[in-house]
Amino acid sequence: MQTMPQAIRHARDELDLSLADLQRMFRKKTGIAYVGRVDASPQAHSWFRRFGEDVRFCYVNPRGGEAGGVPVFTSMAEVPDYIDLAVVKVAPAIVPQVIADCGRRGVRDVIVFSSGFSEVGAEGAALEAKVAEAAREHGVRVIGPNTNDNTFEQFPVPEHHRGGLIGLVTQSGFNGRPVVEGVAMGAAFRRWVTVGNEVDLEVADFINYFAHDPQTSVIAAYVEGFKSIAKLRLALEAANAMNKPVVMLKMGSTERGARMAASHTGHLAGADAVINGLFKQYGVIRVRDLDELLETANLLAKLRAGPGPNCALYSVSGGSTTLMAELADSYGVSFPEMSLPTIEKLYTYLPNYVTVSNPIDNGGGFVIAAPQQQRIEVLETIAADPNVDVIVVGLTAALGLLSDSFAADVLAFAPRSPKPIVAVWGSVLTDSPGYRDLVKSGVPIFRSFRKCFRAMRARADYEAAKGAFRRRSWQATPLSVAQQIALRQNGLLDSGQAAALLEGAGIDRAQECLVTSPTEAADRLADLGGRVVMKLASPDIAHKSDAGLVELGITDDTMAASVFDVLIAKAKAHAPDARIEGVLMQEQIGSGVEMIVGLTQDPDLGPTITVGAGGIYAEILKDAATRPLPVDRDDIREMIASLRLSPLLEGARGAAPSNKEALVDLVFRTAQLGLAAGPRIVELDLNPVIVLPTRAVAVDALVISRITD
Amino acid sequence: MQTMPQAIRHARDELDLSLADLQRMFRKKTGIAYVGRVDASPQAHSWFRRFGEDVRFCYVNPRGGEAGGVPVFTSMAEVPDYIDLAVVKVAPAIVPQVIADCGRRGVRDVIVFSSGFSEVGAEGAALEAKVAEAAREHGVRVIGPNTNDNTFEQFPVPEHHRGGLIGLVTQSGFNGRPVVEGVAMGAAFRRWVTVGNEVDLEVADFINYFAHDPQTSVIAAYVEGFKSIAKLRLALEAANAMNKPVVMLKMGSTERGARMAASHTGHLAGADAVINGLFKQYGVIRVRDLDELLETANLLAKLRAGPGPNCALYSVSGGSTTLMAELADSYGVSFPEMSLPTIEKLYTYLPNYVTVSNPIDNGGGFVIAAPQQQRIEVLETIAADPNVDVIVVGLTAALGLLSDSFAADVLAFAPRSPKPIVAVWGSVLTDSPGYRDLVKSGVPIFRSFRKCFRAMRARADYEAAKGAFRRRSWQATPLSVAQQIALRQNGLLDSGQAAALLEGAGIDRAQECLVTSPTEAADRLADLGGRVVMKLASPDIAHKSDAGLVELGITDDTMAASVFDVLIAKAKAHAPDARIEGVLMQEQIGSGVEMIVGLTQDPDLGPTITVGAGGIYAEILKDAATRPLPVDRDDIREMIASLRLSPLLEGARGAAPSNKEALVDLVFRTAQLGLAAGPRIVELDLNPVIVLPTRAVAVDALVISRITD
Repeated sequence: MQTMPQAIRHARDELDLSLADLQRMFRKKTGIAYVGRVDASPQAHSWFRRFGEDVRFCYVNPRGGEAGGVPVFTSMAEVPDYIDLAVVKVAPAIVPQVIADCGRRGVRDVIVFSSGFSEVGAEGAALEAKVAEAAREHGVRVIGPNTNDNTFEQFPVPEHHRGGLIGLVTQSGFNGRPVVEGVAMGAAFRRWVTVGNEVDLEVADFINYFAHDPQTSVIAAYVEGFKSIAKLRLALEAANAMNKPVVMLKMGSTERGARMAASHTGHLAGADAVINGLFKQYGVIRVRDLDELLETANLLAKLRAGPGPNCALYSVSGGSTTLMAELADSYGVSFPEMSLPTIEKLYTYLPNYVTVSNPIDNGGGFVIAAPQQQRIEVLETIAADPNVDVIVVGLTAALGLLSDSFAADVLAFAPRSPKPIVAVWGSVLTDSPGYRDLVKSGVPIFRSFRKCFRAMRARADYEAAKGAFRRRSWQATPLSVAQQIALRQNGLLDSGQAAALLEGAGIDRAQECLVTSPTEAADRLADLGGRVVMKLASPDIAHKSDAGLVELGITDDTMAASVFDVLIAKAKAHAPDARIEGVLMQEQIGSGVEMIVGLTQDPDLGPTITVGAGGIYAEILKDAATRPLPVDRDDIREMIASLRLSPLLEGARGAAPSNKEALVDLVFRTAQLGLAAGPRIVELDLNPVIVLPTRAVAVDALVISRITD
Repeated sequence: MQTMPQAIRHARDELDLSLADLQRMFRKKTGIAYVGRVDASPQAHSWFRRFGEDVRFCYVNPRGGEAGGVPVFTSMAEVPDYIDLAVVKVAPAIVPQVIADCGRRGVRDVIVFSSGFSEVGAEGAALEAKVAEAAREHGVRVIGPNTNDNTFEQFPVPEHHRGGLIGLVTQSGFNGRPVVEGVAMGAAFRRWVTVGNEVDLEVADFINYFAHDPQTSVIAAYVEGFKSIAKLRLALEAANAMNKPVVMLKMGSTERGARMAASHTGHLAGADAVINGLFKQYGVIRVRDLDELLETANLLAKLRAGPGPNCALYSVSGGSTTLMAELADSYGVSFPEMSLPTIEKLYTYLPNYVTVSNPIDNGGGFVIAAPQQQRIEVLETIAADPNVDVIVVGLTAALGLLSDSFAADVLAFAPRSPKPIVAVWGSVLTDSPGYRDLVKSGVPIFRSFRKCFRAMRARADYEAAKGAFRRRSWQATPLSVAQQIALRQNGLLDSGQAAALLEGAGIDRAQECLVTSPTEAADRLADLGGRVVMKLASPDIAHKSDAGLVELGITDDTMAASVFDVLIAKAKAHAPDARIEGVLMQEQIGSGVEMIVGLTQDPDLGPTITVGAGGIYAEILKDAATRPLPVDRDDIREMIASLRLSPLLEGARGAAPSNKEALVDLVFRTAQLGLAAGPRIVELDLNPVIVLPTRAVAVDALVISRITD
């Protein structure tokens, strides 16, 4: 089995390679070979043109000859030297051979349109593996199969564009289309990659490419699943390092049907929580629909990093400014009071009954009656206020002269405004001069107030998170021999194996011992502090409390002996076939804050760590935070702080504060154990972990392991 | 003071009157008098035309004569008999006189455009009161002041419209505009009322009017505040009775700055929670932005009541159907498996690698290659499936032939489809034949998947709530003399007064008595069950636990006597100026589920009842439900069930189940007390209420009262 650090080194090599290859692939092409059906129609020729005006073309098809002035070569071997990209649309069975031919001819960049691979079942998947093999063997980079030519579409940068370009990558050939149609509202794109089946190049390669591309300033993505979590993490680290926000619509946030998990952690760490945990680590902005993907990426591309989060909310009616303030507030977007000189100056232009302290309502009449020079002076006054970082302009409706003039003001002022302007166009009517001027002004446009302030919130969170962007180490102390032995089985670990595993990780546990007779139970009581919990020990029974196989508060030798007998008898009645190892006697920990700490495996993102409220609240509130590994102690502090019940740790109702750092340490040790063990730990529950003023103690553990090769 | 039942009778009379008056006002007008500046321009004349082609007009202005063929009368007294509506736009000071003149001339319907009333301060408010008085005195109904003529705008019903009309009422003259601009996407409006300052007719009058109007099928509203909660409730009851969904964008959902409240309930029952509580009672659909107001109302108007909630999700790409399924799922919108015969039939048209079991992906190629007859047969097949109630069609992008053909299919099929169709148009591009066909098809259109499924969820909730729509009684047992005496003061009630108030309401309380000496404390212990809590009794100290003035678990005479002395000494140190009445000894209730029950006053919606998780969770989780009064026992059961910690009452971890009905009874008695006391109870906290398997007991009470006239 590859260790985690090995996996990450391998991923880093792959990304370095794909970065160089993509920089080559996306350089201006000199010639394209279309491998497939020859089409001499004018449509076919106009299609070629999207690769650039001065690019040369040829067909590759056994028929040979020429078609409408374009040469047709019978094989890739014959194509001229100027060909540096092949577009392949042949029967799937032939694709591996074509890839090999491309490699032999030195054409290393290939897009495979053909479908009929893994998307149609096992046979297709086998063929896909052959495509991958051919690509590797001949040093060819493949986008696809089952994709289209969107990757080479040219996006005109809108005339009045200010700000950066969006790099878009999508796992659907269709779901990116409404995003790039955003050009019509002023969005500017660097490139849109549709990855197809990702037989070779995958989403992470393109995120990494855009991160390093100087012309890209924001990365947007529609993703259904990740191929390599190690590559994804490295690509996100690159985006962080290069100061490029990533906005992602990631599928898989809801799960139909419960997951089959034995541990509480398994039920708490749903796919959505794991994705959110990963995104939190890298400040990835998660959106929930395609319009949000477009509008949020557009905002971030047009508003360069730097301007703070404080908004001036400006519109033409009290109703609209009320609505703007309410929605800004509901997303926690800051709109501080204007300074006094600003307020005084605004009232020299605006009637005394409108509100101008923020939000700012110009009353509508002003826009219609006042000369544009004055209207722009109002915008200048707002922009000059030291409390303002961004001006949000609300064009709620398409109301003839009112919205047309207001938009004309934005068009006139935006290019020389010292503060960025963001606009909301609320109407479904977009055929007015007002809307056209707004697009022309180059400001980011939202189609509702709600979406505007949601995106502004996301932007503020991203800016705030930047300071803490960092690499997390994949290093973990390797498992001891005792730990490796403990995990060398499939299924539930017995109490001794679990103890060995946790002890090796340095996790503070309640003192315990296994006793096999009533006499022994009586004898050991004093060693364990004189107050114990007694639990039946059996690898075959998972939830012992529910089965009445746990007794608390035993402080007396005779009682210990008789509880031993009772537990054995109960267990035989409850599960006659279960192997019974004896009774576990455990130091009874005083009352503290009950937490749950656990490991689980996410099918997409690998091992994860969870910390949550314990006891009955684990089940009722599902108050837990999850992150995929690796994590560091600051991640864990953030996770704990994010819990609703986190204030309990501060000491509620006069209780002494719990030792939070001891909890952080215990969670970190658990996470490092998960990193070292990898897929060998399928699920691990420390439940409860009792956090006392002095220490954090795991009182019970459930571990399920799996033998890996 | 008017009692609640009196208030509701008065409100009912007002609504009956305004209903008749509005039915008159909105009848076809024969003549309009414009009271204000004479304008002979063509614009002015085209403005008149919005009142109808065959309506006659005149001006009222001291200059007299005529203007561009329209007569100008010098006063309202002179206008001809055919004048049945006056539009007033004169200086605010003159408005009361004009209203009086209208009434004398028999013109009872008036819209006042003039502004400069309560919106500009106290002087304007005084003038507004005079307008109200003139209207009452002369039997005139006024819309406004500070409004516009939107109320008489004619909305053309789109050519291919199927379904009902939307009645819209807004408290902003501007925020309704983007809603009615929805005509461009096929929405159909009955009327849009902009209420202005509501000096006479208010939002509730128009909701009631639309509820009774046979041509209105959905009521939509933008509201910043309600004038009369009694009228509002009756209007919502009317909407329920007439089967008209109400969709509302209500401001006031977030509060900047904490409210100044002494009780926990005061902190739990925020304005947003109260509004949600009210809306829950009447199935009002709450939306958060203007686009949602439009799209949700449009959905409900076009989908008549009846069709169930089960959707077929149909689109042209696997990416889009994945996204549709994810978002439907995230809003809990049902999309069951297609039946087997449907699946088999669909595969006779569609390639075998697409998913058709729901969501249904036709792969895109089918739309481009297959003849329309076949494409419509696919829609027919989906519509015929018994598991399908509604077909949601995803037109994710404006992609030339693909979206144009798909929309053409909707246009062809929708008029004869046995199941309603809902469409999502995801692109900002709306200048294609596809978008135009979709609008023409008359189906409700959403601009994002997310908004579509949020609205579908709201619709399903409304349909499910219908069966339980009911009137709540405003009757409550009047306060006893002892209760009235207890409330006859401003401020915190002492323990004896609080006891009298709760006893009179039949609220189960822990037994208690006030003792004033150590000896008395020792003597009374046995009477109180032999296990007591002792608390300092002072009307001047609010949070006694925090000040260490509560001692638990006293079971011994000597201990009782010494605790008495300790508490008195502590209190003197803690608050030297506080009046000390003695020590309250209280029966100590065993451990059960801790809840909090309380009353508070909402500035907008009057007295409210709150029930929530008690103890430390009251503060940390804010797990509470609030409703304005009146409520019935079913409301309270719903409130309790909505709490996150509600499962605790079922008996978690082997505990016996709590007596939930005893809790329901206690909450109901508290609510009825609040109804009877009205504004005299400013705040009331029962905290904790301990719910045991046998009973629900209020252990501590905090009551703040206010003398009303």
